[in-house]
Amino acid sequence: MNAPTSHQHLAPTIAQREVPPALIAELQTRFGTNCSTAQVIREQHGRDESAFTHVPPPAAVVFAESTQDVSDAVRLAAQYKVPVIPFGVGSSLEGHLLAVQGGISVDVSRMNKVLSINAEDLTVTVQPGVTRKQLNEEIKSTGLFFPIDPGADASIGGMSATRASGTNAVRYGTMRENVLALEVVTASGEVIRTGTRAKKSAAGYDLTRLLVGSEGTLGVMTEISLRIYPLPEAVSAAVCSFPSIEAAVHTTIAIIQMGVPIARVELLDGNTIRMVNNYAKLRLAETPMLLMEFHGSPAGVKEQAETVQEIATEFGGQSFEWATTPEERTRLWTARHNAYFAAIQSKPGCRAISTDTCVPISKLADCLLDSIVEADATGIPYFLVGHVGDGNFHFGYLIDPSNAHECETAETLNHKLVNRALRLGGTCTGEHGIGLHKMDFLRAETGEGAVDMMRTIKRALDPHNIMNPGKIFSL
Amino acid sequence: MNAPTSHQHLAPTIAQREVPPALIAELQTRFGTNCSTAQVIREQHGRDESAFTHVPPPAAVVFAESTQDVSDAVRLAAQYKVPVIPFGVGSSLEGHLLAVQGGISVDVSRMNKVLSINAEDLTVTVQPGVTRKQLNEEIKSTGLFFPIDPGADASIGGMSATRASGTNAVRYGTMRENVLALEVVTASGEVIRTGTRAKKSAAGYDLTRLLVGSEGTLGVMTEISLRIYPLPEAVSAAVCSFPSIEAAVHTTIAIIQMGVPIARVELLDGNTIRMVNNYAKLRLAETPMLLMEFHGSPAGVKEQAETVQEIATEFGGQSFEWATTPEERTRLWTARHNAYFAAIQSKPGCRAISTDTCVPISKLADCLLDSIVEADATGIPYFLVGHVGDGNFHFGYLIDPSNAHECETAETLNHKLVNRALRLGGTCTGEHGIGLHKMDFLRAETGEGAVDMMRTIKRALDPHNIMNPGKIFSL
Repeated sequence: MNAPTSHQHLAPTIAQREVPPALIAELQTRFGTNCSTAQVIREQHGRDESAFTHVPPPAAVVFAESTQDVSDAVRLAAQYKVPVIPFGVGSSLEGHLLAVQGGISVDVSRMNKVLSINAEDLTVTVQPGVTRKQLNEEIKSTGLFFPIDPGADASIGGMSATRASGTNAVRYGTMRENVLALEVVTASGEVIRTGTRAKKSAAGYDLTRLLVGSEGTLGVMTEISLRIYPLPEAVSAAVCSFPSIEAAVHTTIAIIQMGVPIARVELLDGNTIRMVNNYAKLRLAETPMLLMEFHGSPAGVKEQAETVQEIATEFGGQSFEWATTPEERTRLWTARHNAYFAAIQSKPGCRAISTDTCVPISKLADCLLDSIVEADATGIPYFLVGHVGDGNFHFGYLIDPSNAHECETAETLNHKLVNRALRLGGTCTGEHGIGLHKMDFLRAETGEGAVDMMRTIKRALDPHNIMNPGKIFSL
Repeated sequence: MNAPTSHQHLAPTIAQREVPPALIAELQTRFGTNCSTAQVIREQHGRDESAFTHVPPPAAVVFAESTQDVSDAVRLAAQYKVPVIPFGVGSSLEGHLLAVQGGISVDVSRMNKVLSINAEDLTVTVQPGVTRKQLNEEIKSTGLFFPIDPGADASIGGMSATRASGTNAVRYGTMRENVLALEVVTASGEVIRTGTRAKKSAAGYDLTRLLVGSEGTLGVMTEISLRIYPLPEAVSAAVCSFPSIEAAVHTTIAIIQMGVPIARVELLDGNTIRMVNNYAKLRLAETPMLLMEFHGSPAGVKEQAETVQEIATEFGGQSFEWATTPEERTRLWTARHNAYFAAIQSKPGCRAISTDTCVPISKLADCLLDSIVEADATGIPYFLVGHVGDGNFHFGYLIDPSNAHECETAETLNHKLVNRALRLGGTCTGEHGIGLHKMDFLRAETGEGAVDMMRTIKRALDPHNIMNPGKIFSL
């Protein structure tokens, strides 16, 4: 592991390729009003929730309504060697949707059908534009649910493409574990299928796992089969306040090491709770807090809760507040899911530079505590939330994007944090992806050899580099 | 999904490439007595537990003792464009170890050190020659265990390369879910690293998962980081007899659909139990049987067991026999793990043609019952065991390899079974891999498009096709 040698900057490298008018004309002939070149539509598709700005929007947006649409759009783009950027709901935090090399956006948000629910097999097959909340709404009556929950109401396509996770990953895994099979339009416009709905398979290269997390650089997902789970018989949530971040973190480490099958364990620091209280009119104690949830049978949930309460008490945890009704639980978890928006609203006009390191659980305290000291020393406002059961946490440094000093400070903090996480055997990104901004970190994390292997695969599968170029690595 | 159009045969396609004496000389200079060309050593390394015969052995065997050894051996082979076949303990069931295109065997069984145990993080890093039993022996004192248990005492390298699993997969997943990070020698002899010990990551292409299950065709694994688990506080095993296979299978389906976190649920048919009774001097009832195991807290295990007993009783399950002491459990599970050897011994001189289909759980009864009727109609002896909680089961057709009629009958049965599994949305191989024998099945399962993508990746990463060529797909 080599430390990255240069600072990263918020202005992405832009190397626009030409989009010939002939391609636009062909797209308009094929797609009619489903191909738009309106400025406002293009601009909507040329940005995401990242802090990146100043990238020209894509030259056109195709609203795909079927696999055939996606295939035809990619075929035409391939013919002209023009970049294709798949678009779901635009909730990427890492610049995945920016047209840094120009090209066209293929918006799959209208491909939003749940194609089949196989309740007996605990699987579901969806189009990529289905969002996670929509999916859970549509399968509610079956007594099953899809647990992966990034903060945003992201599309399943986007979540698959970025290997997303969320608060439930500690028990249910990430998109890596929960995508079973894919239909994908490749860089040549061909439609292929990977995987089956069988729970396990040893049939050749694991293309499903290669494509999950490939950030749109190898193809456009057009169908996704997922694992779903029986709604737990009993659910119980708890909030526990701690005298220090350290105490909360050591409680988490002990819970995981003891093998308690906790469903969620989220950290918020006192400062973030203050923001959430203001935003959502809550009155949570403004000290470090763990938000926890237990899934299982009534007896199992009770047992888990008792074990955790014992551990927490040992580390000085106090004022356990329990929530067993759905309404009470929703109130608590809304607070957690609102943290990002609460923080953004606390500093008008700001953007959040979100970190995403993930370390082996035994290193969590080391990684987190030193980074808090560093951040506090700069005086920059931030929020801090963490899927701490997985060793994953996010600082959100709140910066005014036009203030160079603030940008630089946030960058420096992120840089130090990532280097610390890598030294501790962790990763620069637990769930947001590499996108535009973490390419140096990726090289530092995995070494040139592995990145070269990724590049070799990319060149072989996308020889003209048209699939979301300029993301993950430079070619 | 297209049905395979031609029958498969037990004689693999052999297209030996020349191994120049100059390469052997260079290997002997570099490795001294750790490079052997003795006939008996070569023959040991030219076969495995599959039914394939009549393939000439590799030209030489290099006993690697370090990553550097593997790298040097691959570099020399690459220089002469000579195939390299990685070898662990030789327990493949699919011909992975056969030198169908000639070449050299790189035996990693002496790379058998547990490099680090990170008990606090529930991870361990091992060399590829460590076997699963050795690993569990070496971590026993930490209170942790590694759950993946194919029948053989396979090497962790071999298990990773074939995406193996076993009886515990229903709760703990397969090698896909449990390999965190790899060190790999690529086709050029370069050493790369993939993944980290962090529990989750969204850092670029998931090379770890691409390599797991690639059957030695993309590189040689030289270090493997794995997830390990706290030994459950309580374990309880049970045997339950059923009036019919159908009743046993429907019990399994109900257990899974209700979300009972059962650790193991294995099916044996009456005929297989008879073989096991003879072999191991047991007196199990010779009717269809489920062998089950529950892991958790004492209360949790009790609760699971009660739920399962209720379900089983509904389907006519009877004479539950419980085993709570380690000795009793070992006795039961030894029976299961001995099924293969018991069957082989029941027909002197026979080989087993093992099927490995895996289907979505709701299709398990359809797939299994029709295949039993088919097998019974032929009169061929077989054993039948199944990791039925995953929808995965194995027929082992017991054939005299010199009897063309028996071979043909077994092939026809396997063929029909696979086609049935594919029609039901399943896979031709749950855990053994494609190897030499299932290439047509792979194409039928995933389509030419996906196999072409695999080939494109293979050609890009191994341009001279030296890494275990002739496996998974033809080039």
